[in-house]
Amino acid sequence: MNIGIVGLGLMGGSLGLDLYTHRQQTQDSNSPAFQPQSYRILGISRQQQTCEVAVERGVVDEASVDLSLMNQADIIFICTPIAAIAPTVAELIPYLQPHTILTDVGSVKKPIVDSCSALWPNFVGGHPMAGNTQTGIDAAQHHLFVDKPYVITPTANTSLESIKIVESIVDLLQAKIYHCQPEEHDRAVAWISHLPVIISGSLIAALKQEDNPDVALLAHYFASSGFRDTSRVGGGNPELGLMMAKYNREALLRSIKSYRQTLDKITTYIEQEDWETLDKQLNQNHSDRLKFHF
Amino acid sequence: MNIGIVGLGLMGGSLGLDLYTHRQQTQDSNSPAFQPQSYRILGISRQQQTCEVAVERGVVDEASVDLSLMNQADIIFICTPIAAIAPTVAELIPYLQPHTILTDVGSVKKPIVDSCSALWPNFVGGHPMAGNTQTGIDAAQHHLFVDKPYVITPTANTSLESIKIVESIVDLLQAKIYHCQPEEHDRAVAWISHLPVIISGSLIAALKQEDNPDVALLAHYFASSGFRDTSRVGGGNPELGLMMAKYNREALLRSIKSYRQTLDKITTYIEQEDWETLDKQLNQNHSDRLKFHF
Repeated sequence: MNIGIVGLGLMGGSLGLDLYTHRQQTQDSNSPAFQPQSYRILGISRQQQTCEVAVERGVVDEASVDLSLMNQADIIFICTPIAAIAPTVAELIPYLQPHTILTDVGSVKKPIVDSCSALWPNFVGGHPMAGNTQTGIDAAQHHLFVDKPYVITPTANTSLESIKIVESIVDLLQAKIYHCQPEEHDRAVAWISHLPVIISGSLIAALKQEDNPDVALLAHYFASSGFRDTSRVGGGNPELGLMMAKYNREALLRSIKSYRQTLDKITTYIEQEDWETLDKQLNQNHSDRLKFHF
Repeated sequence: MNIGIVGLGLMGGSLGLDLYTHRQQTQDSNSPAFQPQSYRILGISRQQQTCEVAVERGVVDEASVDLSLMNQADIIFICTPIAAIAPTVAELIPYLQPHTILTDVGSVKKPIVDSCSALWPNFVGGHPMAGNTQTGIDAAQHHLFVDKPYVITPTANTSLESIKIVESIVDLLQAKIYHCQPEEHDRAVAWISHLPVIISGSLIAALKQEDNPDVALLAHYFASSGFRDTSRVGGGNPELGLMMAKYNREALLRSIKSYRQTLDKITTYIEQEDWETLDKQLNQNHSDRLKFHF
């Protein structure tokens, strides 16, 4: 089997590194429990330099800037930024074999699954929930996906055989596989990933509205771990923030609306000096947060 | 000089530890640059057990559950929870010498300075911005205040001599001294400490409103560092959250109002798909956050 990876950055590069190493380990092992894997890993980057680094670092066996390399692939992981996923599928089509499976690693699923499945029915939506703030082939690392959620979002039309093949590869990364509908995925990540960016960014932006320059200056001097943590994701990569708002707009607006109602409710407790209800709410928040296993 | 500490928890205990150790070090030193300090440290706790631990651990020279011990004190640090500060001042008055300076470590200043100055004019409001989630004498630690802001909030009526004496003791803690008006302090901490608790707590509470149980469950499975950090202070000590809302209500409501307007503005960019303005805002947030030195 040949595994293709289009886009050799943090995600595609880390995927290749683990698959490459896994094959080496099973080939080197004398244990009869290990069967040598026969897959080859083929990579595509827009930069010739990245292709060379990817082969040198043991990310892929062969890399090219030319999509025609993908005519050898049985399954292709599309690891480009979200905006490039559907256009990449469209560009790949002339080079694909009829049985080739396409899958992606985009952090939003409904629009990607809709557009990519329409272009190539043998498409399996995926989202490995791993990463860090770095980008590019140099950021690629071993074990990036270990114990992290890897969400697969099949639709009623997705081939079970294709899902199985994607899962068998994801298993090698030691990620935790979850299945859900694309819409459910998008609503869940709106809550835990995209809404936090908006409410955290609004904190930074609101402080800029302080009209007393002494108070603004003191706030800068006094800011400590509470402000640091609450503002962290709001001060993150602007490009990623824009992408999530564009591609997960509907689910994000849905959770902002619910958030705003909740904020208004809690504000009313403070306005009305309803300390008993505020106390209950703060205690509820405290115990609800303990249910998360970070 | 005798230094009194009323309340031997994390704050009072850590204050005593550093003052006690500082005196030992200067007494033990043979360097002529060091002058032995002659202060004694006297502590008050409501628990006899805490008094004993405080003497054993080298927090104070003498401790008592009886406020009359404070009739020997020249300056008293009131290190009780916020709600107990003004009542403690009132209880102390029968035992105070006319020259005794009172100062506090409460995290809100305007209501405390107003009420305590009315009870005892020789009052200097203070707020060491240090601490952690632990409480009690066992949580007391050395160097808690080193390089942390220690805000002093004199009014037009505060004696300059008393401010100087408070500062000379704070200097021994190696804290960074700031001066500002009580109202300015409260507005600044509303921005960087109290507003974050409300917006972070609202995130936890909003997620509970999700009406699709599958989405709620997925959100729990998928929650990672972004949600963890943004929800941290909102899931913190409910008692502290309630106190800051009660005692800093006006400044908190002022910053919530500004926050809500900002959130609405950013929501409108997303609703109207005004990606150019959203992009500018996210970039602004990114560069504004870099100006904080955490």
